[in-house]
This record gives sequence, structure tokens and C-alpha cells, in this order.
Amino acid sequence: MKIFIPGIDGYIGWSLALHQLSLGNTVCGIDNFSRRKNVEEMGSHSAIPILSMKKRINLLKKEYGDKISFFKGDLLDAQFTDSIVKKFRPEIIVHLAEQPSAPYSMIDQEHNIYTQKNNVIGNLNLIHSLQRHVPKTHLVKLGTMGEYGYDPGLEIPEGFYEIEFRGKKAKVPYPRLAGSWYHWTKVHDSNNIMFACKLWGIKSTDIMQGIVYGTKIDEILDEKYNTRFDFDEAFGTVINRFCAQAVIGHPLTVHGKGGQTRGFLALNDSIKCISLLIDNPPKDGEYRVVNQFDEQYSIMELAEKIQKIGNKKKLNVKIKIKNNPRKEAEKHYYKADHHILKKLGFKRTRNINDEIEIMLNHLMKFKENIFEKKQAIIQNIRW
Amino acid sequence: MKIFIPGIDGYIGWSLALHQLSLGNTVCGIDNFSRRKNVEEMGSHSAIPILSMKKRINLLKKEYGDKISFFKGDLLDAQFTDSIVKKFRPEIIVHLAEQPSAPYSMIDQEHNIYTQKNNVIGNLNLIHSLQRHVPKTHLVKLGTMGEYGYDPGLEIPEGFYEIEFRGKKAKVPYPRLAGSWYHWTKVHDSNNIMFACKLWGIKSTDIMQGIVYGTKIDEILDEKYNTRFDFDEAFGTVINRFCAQAVIGHPLTVHGKGGQTRGFLALNDSIKCISLLIDNPPKDGEYRVVNQFDEQYSIMELAEKIQKIGNKKKLNVKIKIKNNPRKEAEKHYYKADHHILKKLGFKRTRNINDEIEIMLNHLMKFKENIFEKKQAIIQNIRW
Repeated sequence: MKIFIPGIDGYIGWSLALHQLSLGNTVCGIDNFSRRKNVEEMGSHSAIPILSMKKRINLLKKEYGDKISFFKGDLLDAQFTDSIVKKFRPEIIVHLAEQPSAPYSMIDQEHNIYTQKNNVIGNLNLIHSLQRHVPKTHLVKLGTMGEYGYDPGLEIPEGFYEIEFRGKKAKVPYPRLAGSWYHWTKVHDSNNIMFACKLWGIKSTDIMQGIVYGTKIDEILDEKYNTRFDFDEAFGTVINRFCAQAVIGHPLTVHGKGGQTRGFLALNDSIKCISLLIDNPPKDGEYRVVNQFDEQYSIMELAEKIQKIGNKKKLNVKIKIKNNPRKEAEKHYYKADHHILKKLGFKRTRNINDEIEIMLNHLMKFKENIFEKKQAIIQNIRW
Repeated sequence: MKIFIPGIDGYIGWSLALHQLSLGNTVCGIDNFSRRKNVEEMGSHSAIPILSMKKRINLLKKEYGDKISFFKGDLLDAQFTDSIVKKFRPEIIVHLAEQPSAPYSMIDQEHNIYTQKNNVIGNLNLIHSLQRHVPKTHLVKLGTMGEYGYDPGLEIPEGFYEIEFRGKKAKVPYPRLAGSWYHWTKVHDSNNIMFACKLWGIKSTDIMQGIVYGTKIDEILDEKYNTRFDFDEAFGTVINRFCAQAVIGHPLTVHGKGGQTRGFLALNDSIKCISLLIDNPPKDGEYRVVNQFDEQYSIMELAEKIQKIGNKKKLNVKIKIKNNPRKEAEKHYYKADHHILKKLGFKRTRNINDEIEIMLNHLMKFKENIFEKKQAIIQNIRW
């Protein structure tokens, strides 16, 4: 299978490329390296050193030859995007080339506009090229569980639900009530893709992914294959950031009550889930929404979990309650379906405790890298 | 009251400015003249001649002096937008500066991207400036009934509805299932504004407007005050296009079965409704959705209405069924609420038959202008 991965230089993009190549598939990736630049803008870097793209590709070429190719470029460049899709003719596109940070999008107007333009327009350019050149290709799009938000206090189905209103029943989209500009760009994308499926008969899986954590996938055995690992306030997601804090003896900073509940998924399982969805595409014209996470936890539960595991390693982990810099409920009802992936055969690789332990062990080797940029962990981006 | 009108050169923008000035309010308008350019791109022009903006403003200055001001510029220019909001400090912003044509957005990728960027990013620049300089200002935003679509076959409330799901009740946004890229940009705007109200505590009225028709408002007595009137496939809305066809002896072209049902509103009443909403703002932090139309009709009903009125004027109006160039249901359930404006005191000025007769009389004076560009009426933009 020929798989096109916009965003191949990222945390998930690089991991997915390694996994898909190991399965014998052909991968073409593009990236504009915005993640490296944006993390630098936040005064940080990847805790785990990663190779330049040139070195990454040379490494893979030795192993996989022509099955891997890379082009530097941007989905905002419609001509560039079109030329790659036209030439490579992918059977699958896994779109991972979005600005993925809620806090980054909330810094100011400029960062909001950048995020909206990058995500919404980039996605549109991609789907227009898909429709033009490879209309039977399956678009796998990375969305987020955060598209639903948590406001209505309802159980969260996978994309659609059946309701009754004034005596009439209908299956309609579940409301999306996102909590940051970034999350709203993902909603706009979902809406544009849902329409494209109806309009053009293309097929797409829109992944509502939980928060991903971890440093290792099965294909990362040698350090030279490492994927990036961010821990700064904008690009470090919560479990990863807590583990980075634990490793350098910084208290785990919980926002407010810590009752914020979300779905979580290990990086290794994220890659496995995406690959399951690749192997089980929707029908032509179908817009399939899949909730992709393993378990739900509150932020405080996670902090306590990491504290416990860290303390066994004599890390002396403290938890510090911090005034919540965000406008969000600190305690709320949260119960989301995640049936589709289970039906397709998804089983977690490791439980979260083992995964956290592996992560802490891995990060301890790069303690100095985290310590060097520790001021980037808390920057108080407020909303 | 100080009212800022981005899009003052348009069909509704110009009419609203005349009406608000006549009420004694102060108006500042901006425009980038994209409507004039885009209609030209469609090979057409306004059937009813309009003055240049320079002449329009000179005319108004004679009557209203400093109460009217105009600046040429674009909402995509964040600095320009910010400087106007900062300086003028409006108490009301009526945002009419969007690309308003569904067919135009569906021409090709370029026209879709243009529409998405213009509408979504322009709106974001505007609300950021509102929040920064005049956070108590009421944003009146022109959306469309087309944001809801008609797919689910449910009655359409005003923005939100109460539903039950798995034993829990909640009031949530009514699903938006738009049918063109343009209509989706309006959904994206609605979502961004709803979030801004929650995030910043600003207040907004999001008008889900029906299809507007007519040439005259109470303040357009002399031809020199005329507002534009489009009849080309992209920018001419259905009643207006039918009337233009009737006037030049062109059959009224109905797409498919003609059972497509929508809400409609006369231009004079649109202006009155917007003004009612200006006079009755929502609370701080409130995101108010208002369905703004007078009556619902199917396309075939309208064609027959115009045929009857036209034939009384010896126009010998024919109706021609045309293969539907659009992907849309040609017959469907449609029943939408429009309670809020009625509660605020809205009453139609004239019935639709009288309005159509006034329009036909007005357009007959400019028959040559329509005839000159008659090839622009049907261009077969397909989706």
C-alpha cells in the first residue's frame, strides 16, 4: 500500500512512518518543519534528541530503499500539495500536518490566525487534491476528542447520535463544543471533510483522538529512530509534561481541582489504531468518526499515578496545585464511547503504569535536556 | 449610536447605512469592493446602476456631514481592521463583509479557498479587534438559514434545541449541515463567534437570514441612492434572478422539481430586522441565534407567483425546468422557527406579491442592463 503522510516529521507522523514501513508499505512524507520552529519559539526543544530529516530519510533509505520518500513543503502551497498527490497517487492519506497545540493557538490573535489558516486551508488543499487525482483514496484525518468538549454533560457517541425533536427522529452530528481556537479548527476540518464526503463521494475516517503519551513504539528500539518528545507548556501534552517534570524533580503542576477528565492513549497504541483504520477503510462516500483512546482519567488521577511510579524510582515526586490559567470546568461528567476500534480488534499493548515506567526510564537518560529548558514548562498562557 | 459596517458597499450594507443614518445614527463603513470585482468576474454587473463609493459618500456627507465616514480596506488586513475599530470605537458592528455566494464558492478549489479565507479569517480579525478595543460592543453577524441545511428532516429551532440522549437532557446547538463551501464558512464563523462569546464575554447576534429579495427600501426614493442588484448565476439570489429573467422575456429557470423550500425576506424587512436587533442587544457574553425570514416558499411556488404577477404586466413569463446542477434534495421537509424577531415586534412592510410588483416595475427601467449581460444568468456552475 502507498501511504502519504503530511506531517511526517512530527511525534506521531514519524512513528507511523516507521511502523508502516516495517509492515512493508510504501511511505511518502512531507513536512514544513513548523513543529521544530514552533517549539523553538516556545523556548524549548525535544527532550529526546531527534535526527534532522535528511539523516532520518538516509537511515530509512538504507533499510527500505525506494519505499520511503520525502519532500519539504507546506499544505498551504496548493501547487506543491497537488503535485505530490498527483505524482505519488497514494491509496491512503494520513493527514498529520496540523498545528496541534491548544495553548499555542491561544497566545494571541496572530497565533490563532496562524492556526486557523494552517489547519483549515491546509486540509482543504489536501482534500481538493485527493478528489482531483485519487478520489478512491481513504483520507485518515487526525481530529481530537476535544472537538466534542465536555459542556453538555451528555455521554459522547462516535460522531453521530439519534435524537428526537418535536416528534421527529433523526441521526445527526453530535454537538461540537470545543474549548480552544485550535480545537475549533479541528471542528471546522471535520465539517469540511463531512461535506466533501457527501459532495464528492470520497471516504474519510475522522479520528477523535484522546491525549497521546509515551516515547516508544515497537519500531523504536535504537535511539537513532527516536521520535520527538515535547514538554513545554504549548506542545507537551499532560502525561508527557508530568513525566518530564518528575524526571527533573519539578513538582507536577495540576491546574485547579484536577478533575478535568479526558481519554488517553499510548503512542504505540495510537499508531496501532491508525494502522487498524487504514486496514479497515470506510465505504466510498462514507464519513466515519472514530473515538480513539484507551482509558479515561482525571488529571489528578494521572498526577497521583505518576507520583507513585516515580517515587518507586526514588524521584521524590511532588504535586502542586496551580491556579487554572484556562477557562474550563475543573470537574465535569465525562463518558465517551470507543466501540469502533475495539470491534476492529484494538487491544492495548501495555497498561498505563508500565507505559509510564518505560517513559520515565527513557526520559531519565535525557534529564539534562529537560532541565536545560525547564522554564518552558510553565509559561502561563492564559485563557 | 455609532455603527461600524464592514461591507458597506454591498446590497444590504448600503441599504443598512442609509436606514441607520436616517435614524440619526453615526455610520463608519469599510469595503474592499470585492463584490464589484467578483460580479465582474462572473461577466455581469448590477442591473440597477449604482454610484461609485466616492460619489455615494459625497452624497451622504451633504446630508449627514460627519455622521458618515468610509475607509477602503479589507478585514483580512488585521492592522487596518484594528486601526478602524480602535479609532471609531463602534457601539454596534454589523459584519456584512463576507463572500456571500454559494455557487461562487463551488466554482473550483481557488474559489473555495478564497471564500474560506475571506470569511473565516476576516471574521476572526474583526472579533479580535472588538475584544481588544470595544469588548462591550454588540456584534451583529450575518449568517444564513443555509447553515442548518435541510437534511435531518427535523423542525429548525433558533440555534439551540433541548434533546435527550441516554437518559440525560441538555440544550445543545442544533446540527448544522450546510450544502456548499460558502455555507460551511458561515458555520465556521458561527462556531468561532459562539466560542468568543464564551471565552471573552462579548455579545453577538448571529442572524440566520433567509434569502433576501427586492430593490427598494424606504430610504431609496431617488435613483441616486440605489443599492446594487445582481442577477448572475453566482450573486443573483433566486427571486431577484427570476424577476430579472421575467423582465427580459427569459424563462424562469427552475432547478429540477423546484420543491426546494427556503425562508425569504424582502430587503426592506431585512434592514428593519437588523435594526430591531441593534435596538435589542443580547446580554454580555450571550451568543444569540436569530432566524430572520418572513415566509417559506418552494422555488416552484415562487416561479409561479412571479409568472402570475409578470403576466398581469404582459411580460408573458414562461417557466423552464432545468436539470439541477447542484447536489441537493428537490423535495424535502422544511419548517423553521422565527419567533425572536416577532417577539421584538417585527411585522412585514409589504406582502411578497406587492414587493415583487414593485421590483418588476423598478427593473423594467433597467431592462437593457439585464439584457446586456443575459449570458451571466445561466453559467452552469455544478456541484
